[in-house]
Amino acid sequence: MGPGDPKALRVLGGVPILVHALRALRDVGVIVVAAPADGVAGVEALLAEYGVDYASLSVVAGGATRRESVANALRSLPPDVDTVLVHDAARALTPVEVVERVAAAVRGGEQAVIPALPVVDTIKSVEAYEGDAARVTATVDRSRLRAVQTPQGFRRDVLDKAHAEASGDVTDDAGMVEVLGIPVTVVPGHPEAFKITTPFDLVLAEAVLARREATSA
Amino acid sequence: MGPGDPKALRVLGGVPILVHALRALRDVGVIVVAAPADGVAGVEALLAEYGVDYASLSVVAGGATRRESVANALRSLPPDVDTVLVHDAARALTPVEVVERVAAAVRGGEQAVIPALPVVDTIKSVEAYEGDAARVTATVDRSRLRAVQTPQGFRRDVLDKAHAEASGDVTDDAGMVEVLGIPVTVVPGHPEAFKITTPFDLVLAEAVLARREATSA
Repeated sequence: MGPGDPKALRVLGGVPILVHALRALRDVGVIVVAAPADGVAGVEALLAEYGVDYASLSVVAGGATRRESVANALRSLPPDVDTVLVHDAARALTPVEVVERVAAAVRGGEQAVIPALPVVDTIKSVEAYEGDAARVTATVDRSRLRAVQTPQGFRRDVLDKAHAEASGDVTDDAGMVEVLGIPVTVVPGHPEAFKITTPFDLVLAEAVLARREATSA
Repeated sequence: MGPGDPKALRVLGGVPILVHALRALRDVGVIVVAAPADGVAGVEALLAEYGVDYASLSVVAGGATRRESVANALRSLPPDVDTVLVHDAARALTPVEVVERVAAAVRGGEQAVIPALPVVDTIKSVEAYEGDAARVTATVDRSRLRAVQTPQGFRRDVLDKAHAEASGDVTDDAGMVEVLGIPVTVVPGHPEAFKITTPFDLVLAEAVLARREATSA
């Protein structure tokens, strides 16, 4: 959850997106939420209100960028934690199986692991043309492309090193690890791990949630 | 709708996907549906059952591949048609505004036009690793990538030429035009023009439809 980003607090099925995301992480281990620097107490109160009272959970002040927020959370982890997952609360409906798959791959020896899905649409590369329009420069071979989700998983020393050497803002921790020449492994993601950002995404999220409730009822 | 593909006949909100797709095309002009060669009468009966009785609509036998099906439909168009849209019935909820935008761009002088959306997820290129897993080879600059939708629009002579010179199966008519060195213009697509293929897509489609009905009620 980036500084000042209210998306994680948007309500989905009566519950803030952040709370949905934390429920899927419940059994994973220590959880650190990076909140806007002036929003730590507010987030703590919100989590209490929704019964998210895991003993293993803490809220820390994020930084000015997404990367600094992750770095702050990373610094607050207990010393004995050696596998770290970085999750985006906007992927609130990420199934537990995805979280477990990423964690298991890191614990099984991979240094960096990301969940991802094949790209289903035809993909073109473009250049600017006129107004909203663009011109196609090429049809991209999509068979080797993957759309990346979260949580991204790392051996702690690898993520520490990546953050120590990174500069600027980065939207993807795995990208910082790639820069170090460390292999990043891709495991299957899940359609329900999509990022909830637009009103269209919220419609989809409500539908997924309704189906889950119908299935579990 | 490819040969033997039952997806276009799957029911969404009580109506086959094909019928949804045709409703969005109603005011566009002449419509030709390429059906499986042994399914022409069946598709005609289905359309009659759902009241799709546009005078301008006909059903022709498709070929062994998607490209041949498009070619067959193209040959059946009246001689005075000079703008052709190729649509995928699986994009059943494509808003009329997208159809009109593509048609308007071709009528306005573009030779080939596709609707597309920016790619929102981080995209990595990968190579095979072990089992289901892959390894990242690079983080792709997604700012120039677009996810292509349909309908794709063409000046008729351009699409005729592309089909005359193409070989093998092709999943994307614009790709055949690109091979000829003819510029392909990209106009904005729409999230609701997604392809309905998986059970997850059907959940989303039902939600979009329910919202449309609630809005128009």
